[in-house]
Amino acid sequence: MNFSDQFLAMEAYINELQDRICAGLESVESGATFQEDIWKRPEGGGGRTRIIQNGNVFEKGGVNISSVYGKMPESIASHMKTEPMNFAACGLSLVIHPNSPKVPTIHMNVRYFEMENGQFWFGGGIDLTPYFPYEKDFTHFHSVMKQACNQVIPGSYEAYKKQCDDYFYIKHRNEMRGIGGIFFDYHKNNFNTHFALVKSVGDSFLESYLPIVNTRFEEAYSEDDKQFQLVRRGRYVEFNLIYDRGTLFGLKTNGRVESILMSLPKNVQFLYDWTPKEGSEHEKMLAYFQPKEWC
Amino acid sequence: MNFSDQFLAMEAYINELQDRICAGLESVESGATFQEDIWKRPEGGGGRTRIIQNGNVFEKGGVNISSVYGKMPESIASHMKTEPMNFAACGLSLVIHPNSPKVPTIHMNVRYFEMENGQFWFGGGIDLTPYFPYEKDFTHFHSVMKQACNQVIPGSYEAYKKQCDDYFYIKHRNEMRGIGGIFFDYHKNNFNTHFALVKSVGDSFLESYLPIVNTRFEEAYSEDDKQFQLVRRGRYVEFNLIYDRGTLFGLKTNGRVESILMSLPKNVQFLYDWTPKEGSEHEKMLAYFQPKEWC
Repeated sequence: MNFSDQFLAMEAYINELQDRICAGLESVESGATFQEDIWKRPEGGGGRTRIIQNGNVFEKGGVNISSVYGKMPESIASHMKTEPMNFAACGLSLVIHPNSPKVPTIHMNVRYFEMENGQFWFGGGIDLTPYFPYEKDFTHFHSVMKQACNQVIPGSYEAYKKQCDDYFYIKHRNEMRGIGGIFFDYHKNNFNTHFALVKSVGDSFLESYLPIVNTRFEEAYSEDDKQFQLVRRGRYVEFNLIYDRGTLFGLKTNGRVESILMSLPKNVQFLYDWTPKEGSEHEKMLAYFQPKEWC
Repeated sequence: MNFSDQFLAMEAYINELQDRICAGLESVESGATFQEDIWKRPEGGGGRTRIIQNGNVFEKGGVNISSVYGKMPESIASHMKTEPMNFAACGLSLVIHPNSPKVPTIHMNVRYFEMENGQFWFGGGIDLTPYFPYEKDFTHFHSVMKQACNQVIPGSYEAYKKQCDDYFYIKHRNEMRGIGGIFFDYHKNNFNTHFALVKSVGDSFLESYLPIVNTRFEEAYSEDDKQFQLVRRGRYVEFNLIYDRGTLFGLKTNGRVESILMSLPKNVQFLYDWTPKEGSEHEKMLAYFQPKEWC
């Protein structure tokens, strides 16, 4: 298959970004390193999954890239409302679940899809799932997101922030998975602009997250803090398995299960009708799981 | 709303069955009792949720009944491919997650649905999710199921066992959630026969499960046994949130979230690319998560 220069440029970017992000995360982790699994897709392409587990800072996380191509499976064609034709898709997905409830979980995805008829699109986003109400950290995170988006497309942060609030919403709980961030999808025109956007978002990841990790990872926490984190991780699982389009689409189109489900936290609790103690920081945290203006 | 005699008979049965099952489970549990939550559905009806948590034998479980009625919500009408009309539905659902990996998780559901045009149907089933390869226990369980079904409808166990194998299948893992049991749905004719079937199944629950609990709950187990249980519970969560029709339908039709999600185990682990030790009992257990003839 002949790849477009655009596809090759995006593929080269995510390859390099994976290295950069893994190195950045390892720079704050003394107890574990990323382990790599290379996999092939029988119909064309494959991926490079990198997983970190049981570290001092990170309990479980993955920074995965994939680049797949070939004849479009029927399931994808019908999803796209098009005839099956050749396609190529590549992307980077990461989810990091730290040990400490003082350090937020973070998720990022950047993706590119193109078809032999010349159509293409970009999608992506970053969102934060904290377990303790350090508003300063949340403002820092959203400020970096705003800068990353608006320096490429003025005013875009506000739109993508709204889309993120809408997307990462656990409908049956009437609450967001975390405190949002940015989310965009089906960006079909102006390759150069949207590629610049995706690169700006990818490049902003370490700046958005590492300062929070560094500030919080050694802070003490209580059993109640841990309990709250475990319960909120249950909500993370509920969102990912019931609503997340990428997860469900991947599982239903015969994607690599272990790479897709690396997004699930290691330790999780599901408790009946659990609520945080009245007046606690955890009760305060719940209020942040509703849309809010940040900057 | 006027309820049919049939509806009232089923409702009376599940009320009594809930009492009987809770008493039976409490008879083997010295560390906790069922706690009751009564809830109302704004549009008509409600339920009685009974939850047990943090016992010596049972880590988390629920034995719930509900009886709801009124104008059929649009979502249900379109699911049923009918015009919205008055309906009434009642059922009992239970899920029991024990502490010990030597004691299986068990699930049962019996349900009845009727519409004002006179249509009705029954559904139900029981299935077992063990974490240790005690084949004797599995044979006992399936023998009780066979007896419960075939004494009402000769030959029915074989059909319902097959439907259970098909239903509780985790497609993306190519494995069953547990070792199956029986499952049936949309039984539309012969009220008396199918009501007798549902009662026979409901009545068989304690006989199918308590002997296993009594034999196993004090047995020693290793850390590896516990680990295997936690990982398999992750698969239980994957099934319930991705595939279980009752769970997804309940969440999407504004059901009582806490009563629906009581099915999720308390403690769960999701590990990347986990496999049991070679030659272990856990590796042996995996073979039972494929359809198999029992009796």
